[in-house]
Amino acid sequence: MHADGSCEIEGINTLAHADANQISFLANNKYHQQFVSTKAKAVIVSKAFAETLDPHQQVGLLVVAYDPYLAFAKVQRLFHPQDVGCGILHPTAIIDASAQLADTVDVGAKSVIEADVLIGEGTVIAAGVVVEAGAKIGKRCILHAGAVVSTMSVLGNDVILQSGAVIGSDGFGYAWSGSEHLKIPQVGRVILEDGVEVGANSCVDRGVLGDTIIRRGVKLDNLIQIAHNVEVGAFTVMASQVGISGSTTIGQGCQIGGQTGMAGHLKVGDGCKLAAKTGVTSDLEAGKTYAGFPAMPHHAWLKMSVLMMKLPEIWKKIKSK
Amino acid sequence: MHADGSCEIEGINTLAHADANQISFLANNKYHQQFVSTKAKAVIVSKAFAETLDPHQQVGLLVVAYDPYLAFAKVQRLFHPQDVGCGILHPTAIIDASAQLADTVDVGAKSVIEADVLIGEGTVIAAGVVVEAGAKIGKRCILHAGAVVSTMSVLGNDVILQSGAVIGSDGFGYAWSGSEHLKIPQVGRVILEDGVEVGANSCVDRGVLGDTIIRRGVKLDNLIQIAHNVEVGAFTVMASQVGISGSTTIGQGCQIGGQTGMAGHLKVGDGCKLAAKTGVTSDLEAGKTYAGFPAMPHHAWLKMSVLMMKLPEIWKKIKSK
Amino acid sequence: MHADGSCEIEGINTLAHADANQISFLANNKYHQQFVSTKAKAVIVSKAFAETLDPHQQVGLLVVAYDPYLAFAKVQRLFHPQDVGCGILHPTAIIDASAQLADTVDVGAKSVIEADVLIGEGTVIAAGVVVEAGAKIGKRCILHAGAVVSTMSVLGNDVILQSGAVIGSDGFGYAWSGSEHLKIPQVGRVILEDGVEVGANSCVDRGVLGDTIIRRGVKLDNLIQIAHNVEVGAFTVMASQVGISGSTTIGQGCQIGGQTGMAGHLKVGDGCKLAAKTGVTSDLEAGKTYAGFPAMPHHAWLKMSVLMMKLPEIWKKIKSK
Repeated sequence: MHADGSCEIEGINTLAHADANQISFLANNKYHQQFVSTKAKAVIVSKAFAETLDPHQQVGLLVVAYDPYLAFAKVQRLFHPQDVGCGILHPTAIIDASAQLADTVDVGAKSVIEADVLIGEGTVIAAGVVVEAGAKIGKRCILHAGAVVSTMSVLGNDVILQSGAVIGSDGFGYAWSGSEHLKIPQVGRVILEDGVEVGANSCVDRGVLGDTIIRRGVKLDNLIQIAHNVEVGAFTVMASQVGISGSTTIGQGCQIGGQTGMAGHLKVGDGCKLAAKTGVTSDLEAGKTYAGFPAMPHHAWLKMSVLMMKLPEIWKKIKSK
Repeated sequence: MHADGSCEIEGINTLAHADANQISFLANNKYHQQFVSTKAKAVIVSKAFAETLDPHQQVGLLVVAYDPYLAFAKVQRLFHPQDVGCGILHPTAIIDASAQLADTVDVGAKSVIEADVLIGEGTVIAAGVVVEAGAKIGKRCILHAGAVVSTMSVLGNDVILQSGAVIGSDGFGYAWSGSEHLKIPQVGRVILEDGVEVGANSCVDRGVLGDTIIRRGVKLDNLIQIAHNVEVGAFTVMASQVGISGSTTIGQGCQIGGQTGMAGHLKVGDGCKLAAKTGVTSDLEAGKTYAGFPAMPHHAWLKMSVLMMKLPEIWKKIKSK
Repeated sequence: MHADGSCEIEGINTLAHADANQISFLANNKYHQQFVSTKAKAVIVSKAFAETLDPHQQVGLLVVAYDPYLAFAKVQRLFHPQDVGCGILHPTAIIDASAQLADTVDVGAKSVIEADVLIGEGTVIAAGVVVEAGAKIGKRCILHAGAVVSTMSVLGNDVILQSGAVIGSDGFGYAWSGSEHLKIPQVGRVILEDGVEVGANSCVDRGVLGDTIIRRGVKLDNLIQIAHNVEVGAFTVMASQVGISGSTTIGQGCQIGGQTGMAGHLKVGDGCKLAAKTGVTSDLEAGKTYAGFPAMPHHAWLKMSVLMMKLPEIWKKIKSK
C-alpha cells in the first residue's frame, strides 16, 4: 500500500485463485474458508460480514460494499471493458452497397450484411455473422460469430447476440388443408429493445402478422425458444432451455428457471418467479412464485413433492384397512 | 366497393391491426370484441359465427368460410408468396465444379456447395449455408442462413430449413472399450421427404448404418433433436424442444407437444397426440392422447394432477387414524 | 470362403440389410428373428448366444466375440476410418498470418482462423467454421461445418465438434444494479480435454473467472447446455438436451439421461446414472441411480410412479371413510 493509503490492483479473481496483486470478493458465506486462506491483496465484503470479523484477526485489505456481488461486477467491468467497434471492416466481409454502417462499426471475416441494413455507432459484428436485408441494428451491439439476424429484424442499442443465436426465424404456423399442413407465411418482425442479450443457439421467431417483442434489458440464456408474437417484459431473465409458445405475454422483472415451458396465448404477470422445469398452462398472477407441471404455487409444490415420497406409506395404510 | 360487388383488398392483418384497406379473420371467438371494433374492410368468419350476428348490426363485409383459419392461411399466402429461386448466384458463393445446380437455383453470399451436390429447380440457398459433398436437394426448397446439410443427406422437394438447422450430424453412438467410449462411425444418411420443414437450430442425426427418415409433410419446430435411425411418419408435427432417441419410429399424423422426450427403440402409433413435457418410455397405441412421465392416457394424467394437489388432505386423513 | 479358411468381407451392416458380402452382428436378442433370416456372410455373436444354437442348424459363419457391440464398433471403424487432415487449405479459408497450423491441417471453404490460433497435426476444419483469436486446438480433431470456437478456448487431441456446436459463449452472469442487469464480463476459458465430443448445436459457456472444464473422453449429445465454470468428469456421457447450471461439478463415468437439468453449485458423484428428465437440486452420491424431480433414487421413483397411478383409488378409499 502506498503512503496515501492507495494501492494498485492488477485484476480481480476468485478467493481461491486471486494472487497477491489481485482483488477478490466474498458474496456467498459458503466460501468463508476461502476468505481465510485467500492470497488476494484486498477482498470486497458486505458490511454485515465485516462486522463479524475479529478485529485482531489478520486479514488483508477489506473493501466494504453494500452488495459485494454487484461490486465484483463493476470491478470486473473495469478490468474487462466491453468491445466497442472502431471501424474495422474485414476485407472478406460482404457489405451490400445499400447498407448504411456508422463509421465505427466493425465487421468480421466472412460476415454478410445484406441490402438496406442499418447499423449504429460502435457495433461489433464478429466473423461468420449474417444480417439479412432490411434489418436495423443499434449502437454498441455485439453480434458473436455465427449469429443470424433475419430480414427486417430490429435490434436496439447495446444488444448482445451470442454465437449461433437466430433472430427472426419463421414462427411455427400452419393450417391443415385437408391433405397437408399449409405453411402460413410469417411476415411480422422481431424487435429486441435496448440492452437485450440472447444466448448461444437461442431462437426468437418473427411474428406471423405483428411482431415478437423482447423489451429492454431482457436476458435470455442459451438454447431458448421464443415463439411468434410472444412479448417478454423489461428486465425479465430466462435460464437455459426455456420454451415459450406463441402469443404468450410475460411481464416485467420475471425470473424463469431452466427447462420451463409455457403454452401459447397466456399472460404471466410482472415479477413472477418460476422454478426450473415448470410447465405453465394457464395465466400466472403477478409477483408469485410457481413450480411444477401444471404450474402451482411454489410452496404447494414443495409440500406435494414431500408427500409424493410418502405414497408408499399412504398406500400401505390404505391397504391395511 | 365497386359497382359489380367486388372490392380491392391491400393486405391481411389481425382484427386489432387491420386498416380500412385490409381483410382480417375471426378464427377464435375469444377475439369477438376485436371483431366488433375492427377497422378491416372485410372479415373472414365461419358460417356458425355469421348466423349469430344480428342482421341489423353494422358490420363490414363478411366472407364466410368453412374454416376461417385455413382461409386466412390461403389469403396470407396470396399476399406473401414463398421465395422461388431464379438463378442468382452470389459472386462470393463457393460452388464446386462437380455440383449440379438447376438454372433457377439461388445461392447467397458466402454459402458453400461442395462436390457432387445436386440441387433442383427454384431452390433458394440463403447466405452462410453449407451443403456438404454428395447431398441431394430437391426443387423449390428454402435453406435459410446458417443451415448445414451434411454429406450424403437427401432433401425432397419443397423442404424448408430454418436458420441454424443441422441435417446429418453424427448420431450419438459409442461402445465402451474397457478404457474409453469408442466412437462408432455414423455412415447412414438423413432423408427429408417432400414438404418437410425443420426449425431453427434443430438437429437431425444421420443413421449409424441405415437412414434417419422424416416422411413427407412433417413439420419440426425449433431446437428439436431427432436421433439416428428415427423414422417420423408423414404429416406429424412436433413443437419446440422435443427430443426423440435413436431408432424410435413415430407414426403418421401425430401431434407432439413441446419439451416431450422419447426413449429409443419405441413405436408410437399413427395419430397420437402428446401433451407438452410428456416422457415416453414404452410403445404408444395409435390414435390416443397421452401426457405425463411416464406417459399415460391424458385423462388419467389430468385426474392424477388434480389428486396430487389433494395429497396434503390425504396425508392428514391418514395421519388422523 | 477360401481354402485357408479366410474370407473377404466388403462391409458391415444390420442383420436385416446386410448382403452376402457383408458381416453383421447380433448384440440384442430381440433381433434373433433377423439373425435367422439374414443374408450376411458372417455374423458377430456372443459366446452365450453361440452356445444356444442347434449345431445342426444351417447358419452362416459365426464370429464369436466377448462383446458383439464392441466388435461391431471396431469393424465399423475399420471400414470407415475417421477423417484425418493432410494439409488441404481451401483457397477461400481466411487464416490469420499469426495463426500456426501444423502441415497436415485441413481447413474448409469460408472457414475463419483468427490471430494466434494454434492447430495440431491432422486436424480437420470443415466449411464455415470460426476459430477465434488465441484458441488452441490439438491433433486429429474434427470441427464440423458451422462450429464456433470462441477466443482463448482450448481443445485437446481427438476432439470432435458437431455442426453448430458453440464452445466458449459467454456465461449467463449479471448483477442487478438497482435499475438493470449489469453484465459481468466472462473472461475464463473453456477447456475440452482429449477425446471429448460435443454434439450439434450444443453450447459450452466460458468461465466467468476460472475455466469451464470438460475432462477427457466426455461425450455430449446435441442441444446440451453446459454453463460457466461447470466441470464434467472423464468419460461421462450426456444424452440430448441436458442442461447443467453454473459451477456444478459432475464426476467421472456418469450417464445422464436426456432433458435432465441440474441446478448450480452442486456436486454429482462419480458413476451416477440419471434417468431422462431428472431434475437435480442437491448433491448426488457416487455410484447411485436417480430419477424424478426433485431427483430421488431410481427405485423410489419407480415405486412412486406406480403409486401415483393409484391416487384415484386412494382418494376413493379416503373419501369413503
